[in-house]
Amino acid sequence: MINSIQNHRSIRQYQNKKLENGILEQILLAATKASNTGNMQIYSIIVTQDTEKKQKLWENHFKQDMVNQAPVVLTFCADINRFSKWCKASGAEPAYDNFLWFYNATIDAVLASQNAALEAEENGLGICYLGTTTYMADKIIDILELPNGVIPVTSIVIGYPAEKPELTDRLPLEAVVHYEKYQDYEEDSVKELYEVKENLESMKQFAKENGKEKLAQVFTDVRYKKDDNRFFSTKFLDIVKKQGFFNH
Amino acid sequence: MINSIQNHRSIRQYQNKKLENGILEQILLAATKASNTGNMQIYSIIVTQDTEKKQKLWENHFKQDMVNQAPVVLTFCADINRFSKWCKASGAEPAYDNFLWFYNATIDAVLASQNAALEAEENGLGICYLGTTTYMADKIIDILELPNGVIPVTSIVIGYPAEKPELTDRLPLEAVVHYEKYQDYEEDSVKELYEVKENLESMKQFAKENGKEKLAQVFTDVRYKKDDNRFFSTKFLDIVKKQGFFNH
Repeated sequence: MINSIQNHRSIRQYQNKKLENGILEQILLAATKASNTGNMQIYSIIVTQDTEKKQKLWENHFKQDMVNQAPVVLTFCADINRFSKWCKASGAEPAYDNFLWFYNATIDAVLASQNAALEAEENGLGICYLGTTTYMADKIIDILELPNGVIPVTSIVIGYPAEKPELTDRLPLEAVVHYEKYQDYEEDSVKELYEVKENLESMKQFAKENGKEKLAQVFTDVRYKKDDNRFFSTKFLDIVKKQGFFNH
Repeated sequence: MINSIQNHRSIRQYQNKKLENGILEQILLAATKASNTGNMQIYSIIVTQDTEKKQKLWENHFKQDMVNQAPVVLTFCADINRFSKWCKASGAEPAYDNFLWFYNATIDAVLASQNAALEAEENGLGICYLGTTTYMADKIIDILELPNGVIPVTSIVIGYPAEKPELTDRLPLEAVVHYEKYQDYEEDSVKELYEVKENLESMKQFAKENGKEKLAQVFTDVRYKKDDNRFFSTKFLDIVKKQGFFNH
């Protein structure tokens, strides 16, 4: 298996050390080699290395220290702005300011991000994805000065690891793979698929630390709560509309 | 650079040959090793190998022959159903039926897909992404029997290549990468970034075949037209709502 796929773990502690010359360009080049919609490359990548800018991102990425520690933050954006401007400059009339193309551009951005992540890891670097990108999209738009037609989708921090955590557990293949058709889950069958996970010492500890009897309750009551989900969901949808992706 | 990143090209012609034993499982395993939201793995992968099922998918993927030719089609789905069922079975109350979690689950599905694609290529297989997955999401939901809380995001076909096309051109790095802040494009600067692309013999040929003077017009007037974009956009949004992802 590709080494960086096999050995992927999210790294949250980084050495105070810049990337060696040329590596960042190689990572960015790898990103652009990913499949994308109609070879339109409807994404942009914003590189943050400036200490002050990183500090601002850190504040908005829920003050996760790795954002400050790691020398590089890449923010992958869905971008119909560049392509649309090129169309107009060519006497063509673009119509990509809608939900479908927001989605296509999102897929492009994520495919590029995963190539970047794997190529970084292949070069001995650590990475971590930041799910907070969508939560705080409005602020990130301000910090990175993203114009209409551009939305931040996801981010990765990149740097030399200062930790080597264990590989994270995954559900067994049969939990996420369906042959020929989706086999829906019954209460018993779904419990069984999560049994190994729930019985891991690390997961028992995780539930205990969070004062919960059941692991699932850590997700619903602590990490990703109903009120927060609804709040950030409405907020993100508004931002997507405001950036000009809902002109159906 | 990782070999399968460096040498990626989309393959649209396949040998009539099944995957060697064990490779599919390795590809699927690689998919599950990707980063994902809170290690919740809110995606599912549907494997289609059955000839009749593939025929049905082919009809809906705009009759692209590779869907029939390739021995395997993987459909990557955003899936909050399994996780929500597990929560309920654990006495926890899930609230992931909203836009933010549709988006999180989409990112999970795409990260998994790119791991699968790269691992397939690393094993000498060819792949091609199917952008038609969202266009025809309603039919694909029927064919694969996807329940509420599950949406097809993207698909890849996998098989032994029967062609070796040239690497596809990409925009220069400076077209898609921005340092510290987004540098918006002016009419002149954007033209310049697309100059090499527009002057490629293959792109000139592509415009000519489509009866267009300018390359951009092939996209706006032939491939991804305004009326089609709006039609499929509204349709896809309706499906996302119908599958239960808009309960804000």
